[in-house]
Amino acid sequence: MSSTELEELRVKITDLDTHLLTFLAQRQQYTNQVAETKIKNHIPVRDQKREEKLLIRLIKEGNKHGLDAHYVTQLFHVIIEDSVLNQQALLAARANPGSSLPLNRVAFLGDKGSYSYLATQKYFSRRPGELLEIGCQSFLEIIKKVESNEADYAVLPIENTSSGSINEVYDQLQHTHLSIIGELTYPIKHALLVNQDTDVSKIKTLYAHPQVFAQCSHFLAELGNVEVKPCDSTSAAMLKVAEMQADDVAAMGSETGGKLYGLHAIQSNLANQKENHSRFFVVARKPVNVPLQVPAKTTLVMSTVQKSGALVEALMVLRDNKINMTKLESRPITGNPWEEMFYIDVEGNVQDGPMQQALEELQAMTRYFKVLGCYPNEEINPTKVAAVSALAD
Amino acid sequence: MSSTELEELRVKITDLDTHLLTFLAQRQQYTNQVAETKIKNHIPVRDQKREEKLLIRLIKEGNKHGLDAHYVTQLFHVIIEDSVLNQQALLAARANPGSSLPLNRVAFLGDKGSYSYLATQKYFSRRPGELLEIGCQSFLEIIKKVESNEADYAVLPIENTSSGSINEVYDQLQHTHLSIIGELTYPIKHALLVNQDTDVSKIKTLYAHPQVFAQCSHFLAELGNVEVKPCDSTSAAMLKVAEMQADDVAAMGSETGGKLYGLHAIQSNLANQKENHSRFFVVARKPVNVPLQVPAKTTLVMSTVQKSGALVEALMVLRDNKINMTKLESRPITGNPWEEMFYIDVEGNVQDGPMQQALEELQAMTRYFKVLGCYPNEEINPTKVAAVSALAD
Repeated sequence: MSSTELEELRVKITDLDTHLLTFLAQRQQYTNQVAETKIKNHIPVRDQKREEKLLIRLIKEGNKHGLDAHYVTQLFHVIIEDSVLNQQALLAARANPGSSLPLNRVAFLGDKGSYSYLATQKYFSRRPGELLEIGCQSFLEIIKKVESNEADYAVLPIENTSSGSINEVYDQLQHTHLSIIGELTYPIKHALLVNQDTDVSKIKTLYAHPQVFAQCSHFLAELGNVEVKPCDSTSAAMLKVAEMQADDVAAMGSETGGKLYGLHAIQSNLANQKENHSRFFVVARKPVNVPLQVPAKTTLVMSTVQKSGALVEALMVLRDNKINMTKLESRPITGNPWEEMFYIDVEGNVQDGPMQQALEELQAMTRYFKVLGCYPNEEINPTKVAAVSALAD
Repeated sequence: MSSTELEELRVKITDLDTHLLTFLAQRQQYTNQVAETKIKNHIPVRDQKREEKLLIRLIKEGNKHGLDAHYVTQLFHVIIEDSVLNQQALLAARANPGSSLPLNRVAFLGDKGSYSYLATQKYFSRRPGELLEIGCQSFLEIIKKVESNEADYAVLPIENTSSGSINEVYDQLQHTHLSIIGELTYPIKHALLVNQDTDVSKIKTLYAHPQVFAQCSHFLAELGNVEVKPCDSTSAAMLKVAEMQADDVAAMGSETGGKLYGLHAIQSNLANQKENHSRFFVVARKPVNVPLQVPAKTTLVMSTVQKSGALVEALMVLRDNKINMTKLESRPITGNPWEEMFYIDVEGNVQDGPMQQALEELQAMTRYFKVLGCYPNEEINPTKVAAVSALAD
């Protein structure tokens, strides 16, 4: 009786969700039309003043319906982010005629289920054309695939919130003619993946990438007497465990990825540091033309003489040209104690006057200088409104 | 002409958003009814198997409408999280009759606009009753307000992704009879906040909490010649800048908080480390009774003799009782090099058999042992489904 009551409610919810999806699809069609009018009239994609008004109205209206302000804000941040990213993708496609391929051949690290695979899926889900995934064993192999036209794009991890910049990828990008044409971030969440539903205490052998073991050292300490087997990639670990079909083995990696091997998570959030994201670059043979209506980022690599003054001078060039820096990381150059290498991301478009000015000045004052690419900024900063209580009145 | 075209589209979008809100409010009513049937029939709040089916269906359906799987997943993670948190709050209120107050007097650090203030707003927005905010100057003052019944609850920051556990708060909690009755996490994002729209290069003086300066050292290095003025809290910095009404001063803190002082952000995401969350405990005079249908967490503090064996033995007690640990942090005890203090969070309810067994064993083997509280787990782990391509087929 009461279980039918629950069932009836669930049918109603399912019905409602279908309506929600139709509305969201309709909304996306409208915002794509908005993008078209913005292209015609050279209007910037984002209008945070309008977004703010929109959010305030929605919060007040939601409040009348008993929806709390945080919920409404969170939900519409997702909706607005999707709308902005879609509009940006549309404008970028329009500014680069011929760039939309019927088949996107994408090289990435590992195999299906790896974090690079999942990031690739996410990035290209917003782009037209089919996706052909080309799993590779090393960063060098990935770069070579694109250079030799066996792939159109490479998706490369460039930094991680817990382990920092991936110098090897920066090194490869310095020595190739490929360009960064896009970026994305993907959450890294390690789970304990098994074949059958089993208990953690039954696990005798654990397969994972060494980096994953390192990031989950507290969990491993708690686990006690378990044999740890390092694998070349997260996906290799999943494949291994799926093939063994035993109930005393487990892999560590993404829960979403594990599902592709029929594995499921018996424990998640294994990493010591709970907030963990990787940032990826999307790389191609030709640089992309970022329309000025779309917020852009530019990635630079440069080296200066290792005296504190040299870097400050370089940073002053950016400041004086009013260019905002979103990343700065330095590292020593092996075998050359007098120089230092810098990875810098700035907000700006290489087609822009002040940016061109800054790049010229930087080039003149550094020992080594390379623009790795200019691409649409995909870190959509959500529009903030005043705290809840102020609005609920 | 074309700007009216844009206006027309925006009216359509506004209309649609109103419909979306009505549907979401209706959905929340249904899920609250679901909670009622779950209370009656002793059914657990979460059913991840059902959530997985629901998500798969929505992704496939969304796909037909041209909505990409990541977008649908992201959106319904927000919707499901809200539903789960509401149901948990409803069950918890029902299990603690008399706990719902018409007025919640809440003590927190700083003043309106501080991160603790924003976290307080977020937590209590889901709870019935009015909110009375009591800003305090120190953790000790906050605790005293609750002990002396001048406040009903305290909201205390307990750890931060970039700076780790806040030992001072743990110390205070060890020496009080208050209990943890809830938890929440809040994103920490520092922005540059000004009175009028001005340029970063014009800023001569910066006000912020020293911790904020530390977390934004790269930004400060780039800024160059700016005078830095440490304040007692983020909200004090905002107030200062708002009172000065000059265009060469700025505060650093939350953009949402700044709006409460009429300040707006000219630059955001200033922190070196982009992913930054704080976790807060909600504390009250009486422990809360967490119904067994709701996933619970328990926070422990203990000290063991400083030999590696002692901790391993303690962790084995948890493992042998199949209790999952979500946090482990150790710190030396000042002036006592032979002992070590541990902060531990586990998934489990103190009313549960295995948990009581484990707590007894731990108490017997440690030098100091205290349960700081048992509370509903508010870290809602989103249900994962297989990667997109597998579903789009």
